[in-house]
Amino acid sequence: MLKYQQIANEIEKYIEDHALQQGDKLPVLETLMAQFEASKSTVTKSLDLLEKKGVVFQVRGSGIFVRRHKRKGYISLLSNQGFKKDLEDFNLTSEVIELEVRKPTKEVARNLNIELDDDVYYVKRVRYIHGQALCLEESFYNKSIVTYLNNEIVSESIFNYIREGLGLKIGFSDSYLHVGMLDEEEAKYLGLKKGSPKLYVETIFHLTNGQPFDFSKITYNYEQSQFFIQANSHFL
Amino acid sequence: MLKYQQIANEIEKYIEDHALQQGDKLPVLETLMAQFEASKSTVTKSLDLLEKKGVVFQVRGSGIFVRRHKRKGYISLLSNQGFKKDLEDFNLTSEVIELEVRKPTKEVARNLNIELDDDVYYVKRVRYIHGQALCLEESFYNKSIVTYLNNEIVSESIFNYIREGLGLKIGFSDSYLHVGMLDEEEAKYLGLKKGSPKLYVETIFHLTNGQPFDFSKITYNYEQSQFFIQANSHFL
Repeated sequence: MLKYQQIANEIEKYIEDHALQQGDKLPVLETLMAQFEASKSTVTKSLDLLEKKGVVFQVRGSGIFVRRHKRKGYISLLSNQGFKKDLEDFNLTSEVIELEVRKPTKEVARNLNIELDDDVYYVKRVRYIHGQALCLEESFYNKSIVTYLNNEIVSESIFNYIREGLGLKIGFSDSYLHVGMLDEEEAKYLGLKKGSPKLYVETIFHLTNGQPFDFSKITYNYEQSQFFIQANSHFL
Repeated sequence: MLKYQQIANEIEKYIEDHALQQGDKLPVLETLMAQFEASKSTVTKSLDLLEKKGVVFQVRGSGIFVRRHKRKGYISLLSNQGFKKDLEDFNLTSEVIELEVRKPTKEVARNLNIELDDDVYYVKRVRYIHGQALCLEESFYNKSIVTYLNNEIVSESIFNYIREGLGLKIGFSDSYLHVGMLDEEEAKYLGLKKGSPKLYVETIFHLTNGQPFDFSKITYNYEQSQFFIQANSHFL
């Protein structure tokens, strides 16, 4: 981890530990520089990172302020780290329904930018929060990138393994969301009635070099899941 | 608009006009500098903005590449400009159900960070896409910031008016999403059956100085709406 990331983490922890609220002012740049024994450019980079992550906002000529805390138990739709991180205070478990190497369908091949005779790892899991079904997940990993998976890995955080085990750098993602009704199979896995509402999310995850490595389809249990998104002004 | 924003717009337009695809490489920095007669730092700022907006991704030592085009007709959950912009190719209209000045409820006061005896503008609208109900929207504007609204303004884009009419700078937003079932009133406005699925989104919009000015509650017609989110690697 680089120094500016470390400092960003420490500032974030400070905000949490002191339960700072939206609008609370952070110390000025000079104080932070002295406190972390870091240069102006390093502290500025830390603050920019925290701003991108929605932890603080900066007002020119006025200071650095804390942004609203995310509500507890909400899943970030912007996180690329898998939602295990959002729900770390919760008891999250996985049941692996299927794990196999197969050929991609046209849809999968198009989204992973591979050929129909390439191999993908297919993973189907139900994820539980405090023993309640949170979502049904089907994921397709480009096997030439994610070269190995087994039952033990997919019972835990696949993304942790991809980062730490395979040493890959996870980059950006594109997600497409639809609201609809559960079909019979989905309802069975989620412990709901057929026809209940669902949030269905398709995501393509890319490495930092732009290669798509994971195409995932998640169907959420509407009773167990809630989501948040923080947007910055650069989207204006 | 600043020069780097202008250049960013032109690059984005170039990508659209030439229907460039995910992974297509853009000209190198030096070429862009010459083409736009701009300094390295200006072009770098333009590219950073485009990266934040999910239009391009940069690979160190390798170049600048086009990111996947958003699917047409999808509403960005990261846009702070109101979704009129996402759907500009579509015929979007509004029906104003209610517009009045009132006192906030506790919930509204808390989210707008105002007192119970302050005033808010309450706006209730149904928004239509090609004549089909897209969503039911209830918004609460802090009247000390959004000092004036009338029927004509709220029939159009309120955000355009806030920016251009009132000269305010719209900053960041926090959104909370839930999936559920339509109640009778919502179903009536959206032309669906009671109990149909819904996406319900609460958003607090802030000025760039951090002041919340709009607390909005939107209930989407699941048959008419689909959404996308692009996440960057800094969320890792």
